[in-house]
Amino acid sequence: MPPSSSKNRKVAFIPEGVFCYPFHMIDFSRTTLERCDALAKLTETPGMVTRTYLTPQHAEANRLVGRWMQDAGMTVSTDAVGSIVGRYEASRPNARSVIIGSHLDSVRNAGRYDGILGVLLGIDAVAALHASGRRLPFAVEVIGFGEEEGVRFGTSLIGSHALAGSFDPAWLQIRDEAGISLAEAMTRFGLDPNRIDLAARRPGDVLAYLEPHIEQGPVLESLDLPVGVVTAICGATRKRFHITGMAGHAGTVPMEQRRDALAAAAEMLLAIERIARDKGVVGTVGRVIVQPDAVNVIPGNVVFTLDLRAEQDASRLEALAAVDLAISHIAERRGLSWESETFHQSPSAHCAAHLRAIIGDVISEQGIPVHALPSGAGHDAMAIAPLTSVAMLFIRCTDGISHNPAEAVLPKDVAVAAQVLQGVLERLAASDVVAPPASPIL
Amino acid sequence: MPPSSSKNRKVAFIPEGVFCYPFHMIDFSRTTLERCDALAKLTETPGMVTRTYLTPQHAEANRLVGRWMQDAGMTVSTDAVGSIVGRYEASRPNARSVIIGSHLDSVRNAGRYDGILGVLLGIDAVAALHASGRRLPFAVEVIGFGEEEGVRFGTSLIGSHALAGSFDPAWLQIRDEAGISLAEAMTRFGLDPNRIDLAARRPGDVLAYLEPHIEQGPVLESLDLPVGVVTAICGATRKRFHITGMAGHAGTVPMEQRRDALAAAAEMLLAIERIARDKGVVGTVGRVIVQPDAVNVIPGNVVFTLDLRAEQDASRLEALAAVDLAISHIAERRGLSWESETFHQSPSAHCAAHLRAIIGDVISEQGIPVHALPSGAGHDAMAIAPLTSVAMLFIRCTDGISHNPAEAVLPKDVAVAAQVLQGVLERLAASDVVAPPASPIL
Repeated sequence: MPPSSSKNRKVAFIPEGVFCYPFHMIDFSRTTLERCDALAKLTETPGMVTRTYLTPQHAEANRLVGRWMQDAGMTVSTDAVGSIVGRYEASRPNARSVIIGSHLDSVRNAGRYDGILGVLLGIDAVAALHASGRRLPFAVEVIGFGEEEGVRFGTSLIGSHALAGSFDPAWLQIRDEAGISLAEAMTRFGLDPNRIDLAARRPGDVLAYLEPHIEQGPVLESLDLPVGVVTAICGATRKRFHITGMAGHAGTVPMEQRRDALAAAAEMLLAIERIARDKGVVGTVGRVIVQPDAVNVIPGNVVFTLDLRAEQDASRLEALAAVDLAISHIAERRGLSWESETFHQSPSAHCAAHLRAIIGDVISEQGIPVHALPSGAGHDAMAIAPLTSVAMLFIRCTDGISHNPAEAVLPKDVAVAAQVLQGVLERLAASDVVAPPASPIL
Repeated sequence: MPPSSSKNRKVAFIPEGVFCYPFHMIDFSRTTLERCDALAKLTETPGMVTRTYLTPQHAEANRLVGRWMQDAGMTVSTDAVGSIVGRYEASRPNARSVIIGSHLDSVRNAGRYDGILGVLLGIDAVAALHASGRRLPFAVEVIGFGEEEGVRFGTSLIGSHALAGSFDPAWLQIRDEAGISLAEAMTRFGLDPNRIDLAARRPGDVLAYLEPHIEQGPVLESLDLPVGVVTAICGATRKRFHITGMAGHAGTVPMEQRRDALAAAAEMLLAIERIARDKGVVGTVGRVIVQPDAVNVIPGNVVFTLDLRAEQDASRLEALAAVDLAISHIAERRGLSWESETFHQSPSAHCAAHLRAIIGDVISEQGIPVHALPSGAGHDAMAIAPLTSVAMLFIRCTDGISHNPAEAVLPKDVAVAAQVLQGVLERLAASDVVAPPASPIL
């Protein structure tokens, strides 16, 4: 969309002075954490938190969150792929919306905050508006997505992709472990798999997408900061490397006659670590399969995975090339062969500069140093970035632990996040970004 | 045993000139290889070679080998642990014996030569004596041991330990995968588990133990030599190292905040490789277990094994200490903890200098360069070394491959080995080592 004149937009839709004072910021943090606990009880696996897409627990979570949305003054619906959507209307008709969202599904044996906290903070922000009887020049929508984690159907970000209009119909044929296809699961959930496109938003209708989320990493904690502004969701490449040497007897083959695939892989792993540090990216080897896998046999074959992520796609591609080069050299020197295949590739999604600036300003106003950091983890914002400007607010989590029952947040950090989110809505309302789309809304 | 006067021994038992001419050396190599093929048919697993201890196939192998021993002029018996023993009497009564032995059991999906070839070469050597109607001043015994590999009961060298008097009665309680104890298996085989000590030889009765064996490594092939003289059977230590770091999200934990157990292990593996090279030992990491073992999770725990072998025990212990030190440094620098346990330890068994010299001389007489090399693999000679002087003759095997259906030898190498073994018996007969024990035989 070519930008229209900011002057025109401002004159037309933002009467000066109307939104220039901060409204009362309500601290819902205690309620919010209690709601996280209540959602944690909706689980497929007793004794742990597991809530996957389109399950009865998903439906219950939607009902519960829908009730909280209604309490916050929103009209509630479920979209065509099962996302729960609350809408708090604008002060004027035909307004665009700011969406605050994250996901309600979880990994197996999950924590209580990943995804969920973002949805609840969105509800809090609307509840604050509702409590003061306020309307903004844009609608505020809060959305709880499903299948962000990809646990049930192996494809992540399904809810947010549907919203962004990038749901791939081929996904309908994917089956879960019980053999149920996504299409069947949708039907059982009361959805019509033929009408998924109804979930898609038109780019002109959405002003911005904001996603508060626990950091899932240790950076904010190490800096002693409650919140941080996300610069981008890192792009990621996942590869599998196959190293072929020569198996042999651990006792009878002299060191200088070996073509040990594991020793070579060890050297390759250290090269990956060094390259990741040098290039300012993160590179992880998480799986190693050794064959023949016997105490007294020199490994003849090793397969290892690489997960490489970077804020800048160019850095990621540069690091990948450096890794390939290093592996080539090591394999050649040791007389081994290798091949690799890429099984996942996603570009980085950059957070909008104007939204980052607003979030930074609001954090700063609270007397908190503004720390900008990339998100190494994937989030619904990635899928929504092609639809509209996205931004993310990270909330410190204890020990950086996530996807784990030990996932924890500090109530005071949740209070800060709630205030920042409310402040961001306020700033957005006062800014010129709430102008209508260049083309009239039909 | 204190050595008695060599002059006395020589005068008493070796009339000069009697054995100073070489007798006709018969080449049985074709028959020998055919016999290896015939034994390969005695298998528990159709389509592959698997012949484990005290099975019907073991009994069949004993019967077949026993028949060949009889054909070579030997009297045949089965000892108290099921080893097949052929004895070719000496030229005089009460003589000590030279034992030529190896094993008839195999690994699962084995080759045709490991162990077996040594037994058959022993029979060939006796057959050559028998064919020429010759007796030596010592008896020649040929023994086919069982459970050298330890495949059925997890304890290796059972046959040779019993011969050396070092059978551990606790082994009788070990059960195989089917739940059958060693004692029960012995009874089913027709043995009396209460009379195992009958298999033990008195040190004074055995003059020497000779074991021809395929090299199971690539050294002789790389030197283009048919045979080699073994210096020692390497001592071995097997350890398990447990490395504990901190698992984390592959995207969210910056490189400098990681405590990646696998990256640390990679550095440790390279240290092991470097130390092994520096100390002239062999060190192998054959197994690696990574946890949590997911593409997108930084490994928090790694377990890896070390198999370290050396001709000199001092070198092995020195290398082990260096490995521990290196691992300590790496773990400390990376902020990880580690522990290790040793689950196998065996000292090296040195081959007797006088036997090595004789073997070397005989090889040299055939115009073949004499190459001395340690055995990195374990052999029955290890168990017998405390009983008597031991020596081993290695035979080149194709590509150093063993414990594999692809195990192969060249007929011409087998012919060389047969001639060397016959020549060694000849030399022994002519040397002063055939003196009787210092104490009279009772």
